[in-house]
Amino acid sequence: MSRIKLSELSSRAPKEFGKEATKKKTITILEELDDLQNLLFAEGKHSILVVLQAMDAGGKDGLIRDVFGNLNPQGVRVRSFKGPTEEELSHDFLWRIHKHSPPKGIIQIFNRSHYEDVLITRVKGWCDDETAMKRMKAINDFERLLTEHNNTTILKFYLHVSTEEQQERLNERISNPAKQWKYNEQDFEEAKVWDKYMHAYEDAFEICNEIPWNIIPADQNWYKEYLVAVMLHETLQSFDMKYPGMKK
Amino acid sequence: MSRIKLSELSSRAPKEFGKEATKKKTITILEELDDLQNLLFAEGKHSILVVLQAMDAGGKDGLIRDVFGNLNPQGVRVRSFKGPTEEELSHDFLWRIHKHSPPKGIIQIFNRSHYEDVLITRVKGWCDDETAMKRMKAINDFERLLTEHNNTTILKFYLHVSTEEQQERLNERISNPAKQWKYNEQDFEEAKVWDKYMHAYEDAFEICNEIPWNIIPADQNWYKEYLVAVMLHETLQSFDMKYPGMKK
Repeated sequence: MSRIKLSELSSRAPKEFGKEATKKKTITILEELDDLQNLLFAEGKHSILVVLQAMDAGGKDGLIRDVFGNLNPQGVRVRSFKGPTEEELSHDFLWRIHKHSPPKGIIQIFNRSHYEDVLITRVKGWCDDETAMKRMKAINDFERLLTEHNNTTILKFYLHVSTEEQQERLNERISNPAKQWKYNEQDFEEAKVWDKYMHAYEDAFEICNEIPWNIIPADQNWYKEYLVAVMLHETLQSFDMKYPGMKK
Repeated sequence: MSRIKLSELSSRAPKEFGKEATKKKTITILEELDDLQNLLFAEGKHSILVVLQAMDAGGKDGLIRDVFGNLNPQGVRVRSFKGPTEEELSHDFLWRIHKHSPPKGIIQIFNRSHYEDVLITRVKGWCDDETAMKRMKAINDFERLLTEHNNTTILKFYLHVSTEEQQERLNERISNPAKQWKYNEQDFEEAKVWDKYMHAYEDAFEICNEIPWNIIPADQNWYKEYLVAVMLHETLQSFDMKYPGMKK
């Protein structure tokens, strides 16, 4: 596989996708997802780990609300990973992550993830390249553990927004009272090191590719939601699940 | 490395080791361990994981009491792994193990461990050979994660007792009122499949050898304790630790 260059990938829907028609399709898919998730929970043989990564204002929170918010909360768990605590730092970087890997029957969403340990840490200079390479190998081992030893399907999504769209959304955080709580004065500082982030992301896509990344054009929320809903739907359908019947 | 054949290894101390002289040496080592462990805790840069495996009546509990019981309990943790719970079974086999990996500064003892998932499970036929091989690879990955990403030194001990010594100890569990609580009617059944266990152990020693196993002749408790104390002492000394001084 050739290296992904994010700057060469569109962050918008292809022309043939109309907003209203796509939104209707998404609604149909979400309705079907409800049944499939119930089956996943009832059968209890598979699990799904959704890894969400994006730059600030990339639209992770909206995606969680608008796609996964439609599912039965009993079978869906969301974990947001912020900076590690002192206790978490006294362990290997996957210790706090592994705890929250999904049991069978469950869809677990990681809002940010173990990938931050090879993204923000590299951009900030907290982690040298050699350590980052070792971590990415450890991430491959970890993801293989979940896949091979707990029947977990890992769906990795990078929500790809343009710098223009990001700036617009960050500005809205300042002007819109309903969004001001999300504003962080570091947001604009982070945006200045955009290229460093893109480089770190591209390394992660290249090296942690045993389970491939999905780059989701995310400037338009309706297209992003459609794509993620489609992939989740396809994944659940591929399991060929059956209701287990009465317990004996 | 050639394959270890347990049946060819002595379970007794070499002739040149006298009981009383060895016991005295152990006492001196244990005194020094006390200081070294304090340093490990204070410095907080390294951690130690002691993996104890043995056949029933192999002497794991006695070893924990007589060697590790001398250390400051604030810096020592013991975790016994029994059969997995329903929740644990809904995760990959290392999920319940990783939770208890040692933070920096700590000596963590595993009384039985992740190796049971390639030992008793194989003997009982709960796990086929192909799965066992995959698990052993995952164990190597996991142990490398702790070693490379949390500065953990893993000391793996197999307490090697002869079948004669085991039978004697099991019989004592029946006749000695202070030991009857340890008796389990399965103990003698397990002993009947000794050869199957030896084969599974030998596979684990061979395949999970990135961090090598220490086979401890364990028919005599005083020799077993001496060897484990020596290895723990050597490990701690090799860290070249320093007290960190006052916090700034």
